[in-house]
Amino acid sequence: MHSSFCPPQRTLMGPGPSDVSPRVLAAMARPTIGHLDPQFIHLMDEIKSLLQFAFCTRNQLTLPVSAPGSAGMECVFVNLLEPGDTVVVCRNGAFGGRMKENVERCGARAVMVDSPWGETIDIDAVEQALKDHPQANALAFVHAETSTGVRSDAQSLAALASRYGCLSIVDAVTSLGGIELRVDDWGIDAIYSGSQKCLSCAPGISPVSFSDRAVARIRNRKSRVQSWFLDMNLVMGYWGGGSKRSYHHTAPVNALYGLHESLLILHEEGLQSSWARHKNCYQALAAGVDALEINLLVDKSYRLPQLNAIEVPEGIDEAAVRARLLSDWNLEIGAGLGELTGKIWRVGLMGHSANQKNVRLFLSALGSVLAASGWERKVDISQSLAAAANVFNDAEINR
Amino acid sequence: MHSSFCPPQRTLMGPGPSDVSPRVLAAMARPTIGHLDPQFIHLMDEIKSLLQFAFCTRNQLTLPVSAPGSAGMECVFVNLLEPGDTVVVCRNGAFGGRMKENVERCGARAVMVDSPWGETIDIDAVEQALKDHPQANALAFVHAETSTGVRSDAQSLAALASRYGCLSIVDAVTSLGGIELRVDDWGIDAIYSGSQKCLSCAPGISPVSFSDRAVARIRNRKSRVQSWFLDMNLVMGYWGGGSKRSYHHTAPVNALYGLHESLLILHEEGLQSSWARHKNCYQALAAGVDALEINLLVDKSYRLPQLNAIEVPEGIDEAAVRARLLSDWNLEIGAGLGELTGKIWRVGLMGHSANQKNVRLFLSALGSVLAASGWERKVDISQSLAAAANVFNDAEINR
Repeated sequence: MHSSFCPPQRTLMGPGPSDVSPRVLAAMARPTIGHLDPQFIHLMDEIKSLLQFAFCTRNQLTLPVSAPGSAGMECVFVNLLEPGDTVVVCRNGAFGGRMKENVERCGARAVMVDSPWGETIDIDAVEQALKDHPQANALAFVHAETSTGVRSDAQSLAALASRYGCLSIVDAVTSLGGIELRVDDWGIDAIYSGSQKCLSCAPGISPVSFSDRAVARIRNRKSRVQSWFLDMNLVMGYWGGGSKRSYHHTAPVNALYGLHESLLILHEEGLQSSWARHKNCYQALAAGVDALEINLLVDKSYRLPQLNAIEVPEGIDEAAVRARLLSDWNLEIGAGLGELTGKIWRVGLMGHSANQKNVRLFLSALGSVLAASGWERKVDISQSLAAAANVFNDAEINR
Repeated sequence: MHSSFCPPQRTLMGPGPSDVSPRVLAAMARPTIGHLDPQFIHLMDEIKSLLQFAFCTRNQLTLPVSAPGSAGMECVFVNLLEPGDTVVVCRNGAFGGRMKENVERCGARAVMVDSPWGETIDIDAVEQALKDHPQANALAFVHAETSTGVRSDAQSLAALASRYGCLSIVDAVTSLGGIELRVDDWGIDAIYSGSQKCLSCAPGISPVSFSDRAVARIRNRKSRVQSWFLDMNLVMGYWGGGSKRSYHHTAPVNALYGLHESLLILHEEGLQSSWARHKNCYQALAAGVDALEINLLVDKSYRLPQLNAIEVPEGIDEAAVRARLLSDWNLEIGAGLGELTGKIWRVGLMGHSANQKNVRLFLSALGSVLAASGWERKVDISQSLAAAANVFNDAEINR
């Protein structure tokens, strides 16, 4: 009846998970040891220090939450908010909406600053909301909106939060490792990410980091954190420094082997190089898509390189194309969410997936499937590939 | 500075994680696919059906929470409780205490029924509490107290809950797969477990199951579940049946490969055989420990086979012995928790770790370390091993 599961070998160019490096897969298969083993404690220290490197922070409270990114989001909100608090929340996609859900489930009030899906956050509108709500104690926004492919100006937003005496809360699920992100220099107070995007680790872990100001708020809460599992006052006892660790929960040992290896790969490459690689792959992809006369949804000035929202041409069945890419090319891309359902494809170039081979594969596959779908336009795959190659060649020459 | 982490090859005989089978390790290293991939959806269905097998239930709402057992515990409480509810909570160890924490963080009231650590739950006292608090809507207890090695009479307690119109909430973190547990036959309403105990998967996943009665309570809540991540009303949309799955969070794909493989191993062996193997290993271990004239803490009638609380003999430094077992024998056992700190060792025989080789290794190692520690008593390792061998031989003969 049942048998071992042997997954197909996909190329993952959706909104995440991204392709996981064989090094990371191998790490996860190493023998499990105890979560209080001295060697594991040593690994935890290394992971903390590598996460500080990835986030560009010296924050002591920097650690991987033992659950996916949505739990990392919840971790930040339940620790920082108390019932009755007011938070200004920016929403220009699905994940800003999820922040609102989290704020309200903490018994706090979310003041929403909305921008259309596909556009970036309007900083003036945010400032107005902060002026209108002087009681607000936090400003929350998404750095890289995975639902639309939009980058927000995290540096300016964090500075604005600070100017109005608010903690800045940043969703960096899709940004960490893929685009510039400097927690300390930008004055970010609380940030969460995910393992399965530009870190290219398996899904299931959420790196978080809290500034000293945020930690002070957590330590001085009037009410208890509503989640026992995510209560940083308790988690600190296990992840905190020193040789004496108190048991809180059993860490996901093998998943953390994987995270460590993925952070190591990022460390070997260097942050600047990783950011440059993502940008270069995106430019090549955009050139190739442009050559097919297909549009990208997002304005160039705030596009994410790692998540490309490609407009579905008129007369094309978006789901049928995705299904064909998966069945015939073993290539996964993502659908639109919410109001963009049916209107865009989301093509990820994240971490290990951001490479020249994948860009070429995607352009060939998309062109081929569109041509086979009886699209009215003539599809010239070689021109598309040549446009991408030009970008790669220019980058080589300029090196 | 940093390099890949190569863990030592330990034998895990603590309170969990237990030894992970090479089959499970290999499964976790298979290529990551998307969490909405049709092949992954198929795997999810298989996992659900294998979990139903393991729990002995036909509950539709049976699935693995994407986080460790403590999140599974929280998942059950936040979904079933509303502010102002009253829950009778049995506490005879650390994990009953954690249940109280969870109840209170939901804004509910915990009526505690305490028994001394190391003793089983007093059913008469529980009944009295249910009589004294007719407004109680749930009875919560731990089936296998990992902190003490005590089994509770889950069948009688669940029946009692039902008689008093309460939902029964059961912590089966350490019991699932190791001792008899029948969710449907015993009328259990909500139950959570962990991947890293008798299932011998890597830590990080928490199987849960809810009866129809419990699902009705979740669907008819007056207030929203305080956790977005653990809200079963949302999780059901992703794990529920049907081909249309709505995205909730990104499932920990590779960890679920591992869980699937570990459940498959349990399915191949059969529940009765697994329970019998755990019992047999425990009996051999107990005979060997007895031959060393060392006591087990817990009364024979409610001892857990999979978690043995061994009293530290007078004059022996318990931490030094554990450290020696780890450094010289690569053997991990656990320390006592709470009021049993320094007084017991906790020796696990869970899942893949419950085998003859491990029992012999433990007896040899313990005897050897005690002898080397200058213990006043004479240590006869061969007699201890012979006592264990007798148990194993008897089991062979009686087969």
